Amino acid sequence: MTPSALLPFLDRLADAASESIMPHFRAAGRVDNKAATGFDPVTAGDRAAEAAMRALINEVHPAHGIMGEEFGNERLDAEKVWVLDPIDGTRAFISGLPVWGTLIGLLDDGRPALGMMAQPFTGERFSGDGGSARYTGPGGPRPLATRPCAALADAVISTTTPALFKGAERDAYLRVEEQVRLVRYGYDCYAYCMVAAGFMDAVVETGLQAYDIVALIPVIEGAGGRVTNWEGGSAAGGGRVVASGDARLHERILEALAG
Amino acid sequence: MTPSALLPFLDRLADAASESIMPHFRAAGRVDNKAATGFDPVTAGDRAAEAAMRALINEVHPAHGIMGEEFGNERLDAEKVWVLDPIDGTRAFISGLPVWGTLIGLLDDGRPALGMMAQPFTGERFSGDGGSARYTGPGGPRPLATRPCAALADAVISTTTPALFKGAERDAYLRVEEQVRLVRYGYDCYAYCMVAAGFMDAVVETGLQAYDIVALIPVIEGAGGRVTNWEGGSAAGGGRVVASGDARLHERILEALAG
Repeated sequence: MTPSALLPFLDRLADAASESIMPHFRAAGRVDNKAATGFDPVTAGDRAAEAAMRALINEVHPAHGIMGEEFGNERLDAEKVWVLDPIDGTRAFISGLPVWGTLIGLLDDGRPALGMMAQPFTGERFSGDGGSARYTGPGGPRPLATRPCAALADAVISTTTPALFKGAERDAYLRVEEQVRLVRYGYDCYAYCMVAAGFMDAVVETGLQAYDIVALIPVIEGAGGRVTNWEGGSAAGGGRVVASGDARLHERILEALAG
Repeated sequence: MTPSALLPFLDRLADAASESIMPHFRAAGRVDNKAATGFDPVTAGDRAAEAAMRALINEVHPAHGIMGEEFGNERLDAEKVWVLDPIDGTRAFISGLPVWGTLIGLLDDGRPALGMMAQPFTGERFSGDGGSARYTGPGGPRPLATRPCAALADAVISTTTPALFKGAERDAYLRVEEQVRLVRYGYDCYAYCMVAAGFMDAVVETGLQAYDIVALIPVIEGAGGRVTNWEGGSAAGGGRVVASGDARLHERILEALAG
């Protein structure tokens, strides 16, 4: 089976995650003072969604492996391994903001082969297989394609928060930020999807886990962009990541990070 | 006519703005390099929406005044004056992010009496008259109510970007930020609506125009919150603004800003 044949299964996983998460989104708000109540709605949604996706994988594809944020790893030596992050953007989630997402990735022999970001409040899904990428949501389905942007001075970029960068990493990041046209903070996976859709030009981050990025690599690459670590190598393990819509901009960002 | 009788007219204005703006949202992305093309989709959407709202006001309520971002002022000596910002959050708009909004406010004898924030991509509207406030959108219509939060240490706050604060103002803002539980950047009017809905606790900003805040005051106050300037006076003129869901937190923020 080629990985792309599994694309409809990603929708089933996203449906299962959405059913588990949406009762907690915003219903959360009124009681979301973990310190006062001991109740943590984002963890409740996260765990319920990951359990639902794991159950579906184990039922339909019992030979596949699973790497998840909440419940650890199963069968990591399998040819195909699912990489799950039910709620990427937990700070947006607990603040009621619709810019978190469910990340579902598939590693094929260790290579990110298939990925989806699903945002159930807006009804948007961004998916890809490295060769092509697709949007469904308001406005109807359409292919995803990055936009041309060759120069830092023209680029709209994003990062989770500049506070993530410390010491020499902070200096490197600021060499990029101070040269670009516009910077947006706080969009996590949603920012990568805006790069895939041609509305932003790059995301620069550090400290990522594999489950934060594996699902997004086939989407951005399928839309015509590039995703690497800060040295130009594979980003599949997480860590320090650059995702760009245009390979020329990607080179400029890697150069600026290198100093 | 009491101002609240005009609430259905706010929906008509928001409908007109949405029709003018939505063809530019995200369609924007592919050509949004103003430097290269000379085309500026956010200005096009902003101007078309303000023109449409002005035409409707002049047709239905020709005695009312209008204060707008794009086309200046008309009849500011009228008892009722509309205060319009077609796209609040232009940086989110040009980045494809669904956290901008159309702001429609009504001053009655100079007092913010009625307001609405409309987000046409998510289909959400937040409106209020200072006495009550209401949400329509995914999940169905419901009253808006802020949540209790008495202490800075429990608060989730937001500001457009920390880069807006300079010198002593920056020191004052940081005295707040360093005491709170969580800070989110970059949501403009959407953050105020999350306070009204009880998902965030406060917004602290500087450099606002009247059209950035007049529409939001009746929504937050109608939901049970407070909006003042940093000294506790009226925020209706813009400038340095604090909006809180809980009056006790509001006092703590004003104290921290005062130093």
